[in-house]
Amino acid sequence: MGAMSPDPLLRALEGIVGAVHVLVDPALRAGFESDWTGRYHGRALAVVRPSSTAEVAAVVRACADAQVPVIPQGGNTGLVGGGVPRPGSTGVVLSTRRLDSVGAVDTSSGEVVAGAGAPLGAVQDAARAAGWDVGVDLASRDSATLGGMVATNAGGEHVVRYGRMRNHVIGVEAVLADGSTVGRVPALRKDATGIEWAGVLAGSEGTLAVITQVHLALVARLDAHAVALVAFDDFASVARIAGELRATLPSLLALEAFFAGGLRRVRDHTGLPSPFADDWPAYLLVELATSAEDAARETERLASVLDRHSGVRATAVAEDEAGAARLWAYRDRHTEAINAAGVPHKLDVTLPHDRLVEFTERVPGTVAAIEPDAELVLFGHVGDGNIHVNVLGLDPDDATVDHAVLQLVASMHGSISAEHGIGIAKRRELALTRTDADIAAMRAIKHALDPEGVLNPGVLLPDPR
Amino acid sequence: MGAMSPDPLLRALEGIVGAVHVLVDPALRAGFESDWTGRYHGRALAVVRPSSTAEVAAVVRACADAQVPVIPQGGNTGLVGGGVPRPGSTGVVLSTRRLDSVGAVDTSSGEVVAGAGAPLGAVQDAARAAGWDVGVDLASRDSATLGGMVATNAGGEHVVRYGRMRNHVIGVEAVLADGSTVGRVPALRKDATGIEWAGVLAGSEGTLAVITQVHLALVARLDAHAVALVAFDDFASVARIAGELRATLPSLLALEAFFAGGLRRVRDHTGLPSPFADDWPAYLLVELATSAEDAARETERLASVLDRHSGVRATAVAEDEAGAARLWAYRDRHTEAINAAGVPHKLDVTLPHDRLVEFTERVPGTVAAIEPDAELVLFGHVGDGNIHVNVLGLDPDDATVDHAVLQLVASMHGSISAEHGIGIAKRRELALTRTDADIAAMRAIKHALDPEGVLNPGVLLPDPR
Repeated sequence: MGAMSPDPLLRALEGIVGAVHVLVDPALRAGFESDWTGRYHGRALAVVRPSSTAEVAAVVRACADAQVPVIPQGGNTGLVGGGVPRPGSTGVVLSTRRLDSVGAVDTSSGEVVAGAGAPLGAVQDAARAAGWDVGVDLASRDSATLGGMVATNAGGEHVVRYGRMRNHVIGVEAVLADGSTVGRVPALRKDATGIEWAGVLAGSEGTLAVITQVHLALVARLDAHAVALVAFDDFASVARIAGELRATLPSLLALEAFFAGGLRRVRDHTGLPSPFADDWPAYLLVELATSAEDAARETERLASVLDRHSGVRATAVAEDEAGAARLWAYRDRHTEAINAAGVPHKLDVTLPHDRLVEFTERVPGTVAAIEPDAELVLFGHVGDGNIHVNVLGLDPDDATVDHAVLQLVASMHGSISAEHGIGIAKRRELALTRTDADIAAMRAIKHALDPEGVLNPGVLLPDPR
Repeated sequence: MGAMSPDPLLRALEGIVGAVHVLVDPALRAGFESDWTGRYHGRALAVVRPSSTAEVAAVVRACADAQVPVIPQGGNTGLVGGGVPRPGSTGVVLSTRRLDSVGAVDTSSGEVVAGAGAPLGAVQDAARAAGWDVGVDLASRDSATLGGMVATNAGGEHVVRYGRMRNHVIGVEAVLADGSTVGRVPALRKDATGIEWAGVLAGSEGTLAVITQVHLALVARLDAHAVALVAFDDFASVARIAGELRATLPSLLALEAFFAGGLRRVRDHTGLPSPFADDWPAYLLVELATSAEDAARETERLASVLDRHSGVRATAVAEDEAGAARLWAYRDRHTEAINAAGVPHKLDVTLPHDRLVEFTERVPGTVAAIEPDAELVLFGHVGDGNIHVNVLGLDPDDATVDHAVLQLVASMHGSISAEHGIGIAKRRELALTRTDADIAAMRAIKHALDPEGVLNPGVLLPDPR
């Protein structure tokens, strides 16, 4: 496998994981050094691929001894640059992908233990085969790993039903910056013996520990799905009916909104036919998931809510799985249609439910005041108040519009990052919605667990002033 | 209200909350200085009753300046001595009970913001009046406060359906040891901007912060309840059927087990008639909760599971609410019946589901080997693997049996505290199930957020060796 590296750290790492799992060849490193959008990239000293908790611990210890930063990386599906080397600095990328074991599903309790590097899709397959399912689903399911999903407290399209990743974690095992191992798996659902590591590490984005194993609570597998696309005169009607559906339909799995402009982009890009005879300003995609015996009742209930609302202009209901996929395509293909039209500025925000309509009314003016020719495309998880704000026609290096939109969000008591995290992308904006006391306390915890700043430096927390 | 206290700290506290809310009279202090069992008690310099977050912050700051410990206290319903002054030391009890506002329920999203001192029962009332409910229920609902329930990550009888307190917290506001305020309410369900304070504080037992407000996610109110009591030949059958019910009955709300000896104690103490014509070794209490339209189907499903099992010896099904209360009494009155028989040693443990039966078979031998005449009464939340171990006939000051039982639990990969917490009662045993690295890291977080040890010293973490 080539000559032994002369660098003492690389030699130590080779001793821990084997030379074949210490990638120094630029061609092999490349896929780990850049995020999938190509926006964030840096140079790694090496990419190390441990296969056990003990190896992770030894790798972290070796890097700490050499005072070389460790950048934990799962499936590298992040959107905020939190899992790749920072430009202008270096470090060792610790890839968790070989920690990919998926244990036997406990069919009585609906639980599974898996390595932090197990892709969500593999865990979903194992769960479904055993009559269960994973409560969180992401478009990046074949790459996104459990560890990364805990570290970012992942969201996705089923949050309206099941909540975020943290809600499903019974326990984790993780390696701290000093190489010590905390937490335990399997864990117990009832264990009131102090701080829970899953609670501390959710949202920490690799800055406090490298998660090595995850003990996950599953949800019941539901085999009957119903999908409908509904057209409205305005977004106010979408928001109103979304609130009502959320309060009355226990079977609700997803509640997604998009607008005429985004639909036009999707149709131009994909050649898909119009979902309805006419065009309408706003659309709501609804998915229900139930047991087979409840399916008819829940779809009737959905129909009766829609019937009562005067704002509904047209409704398309999927007849089968292929029809459901066709309706979902109008929502799911927004991202690629927008990317095909230019280099978008992408912001991922949450508004309080009662200010969602006001936000969609104000954000066009905020953007136009800075760049009158910019094109704004909004879509998102309306059930959670989570809007993905896309702006086309801007200078890629000018963040003036981004800042203005995030400031608007903060002034309306929203979140500047609904589900993508902070990473390096938004750490300067963190203070828009977290107080100085909050940031100081987060920094104190970081310093307590990682005094030398070994784990993922430059991510999440702004540089001290 | 009497003369101003000469003590500068007391004077400062009176300036913050008003003299009437600084209790120094021993008769007024008494109810805050002793837990409800009378087992844990100490002497407070004063009991301070702030009515706002700003007052809490000022109280904590004044105590920190005077180097006087602060003992946060909610409803004082704890069982491990974590909310009352320690014997041999002193401090100021900070009672959160005046932070008892309950905001308007958001009927669309099912959310409510309440003060940390709001009793669970008041929040339940508000939620139910709005068509929702709280996912956690406790027998101490009229006293237990939301803040204490977050700080201990409370469990209770509905964990099998809804999980523990942390699962229901959207956000918290809390005051740190330096008097700074972190977190925010109202919070957002999707907010990926770093560490979540609810996650850090759940299980911290008042050692990291004083929680001042809680933003709670509610669950759907279910109006149809069904209760059945089932008798079995042995506990192995109870555990087996409990696992099957948990996997197949989405309507399951509670799954409680008890034994012949405990039932005999309850009947002796209460005079209740026997639930069945014959006595049986083990009993399972099942409660279902559904919408009215699902009630018949779910009770039929329960009946069909029971019919299939050869271990079932007798079944009593409640006909109405009064009947449900009668069946619940056999389980709920265990605690008072045991207390009436002597001073029990009480241990609250969790076992992995697949070792629950083995534990119930081994624990009598563990106890008898030390004290052959002791009486062992077991009952608990079998759906969660949570067993309450009660031992009668022991010297109240001799913890030999307690240690032996907890060691057995630890050797079987269980938890030494399922839902009561560590407090001062079990901090010396914490190392039985948490590693040195775990405890060191918890201590590092404690030191980071409270370097002077102002908040609840002596609780949770063992003294450094």
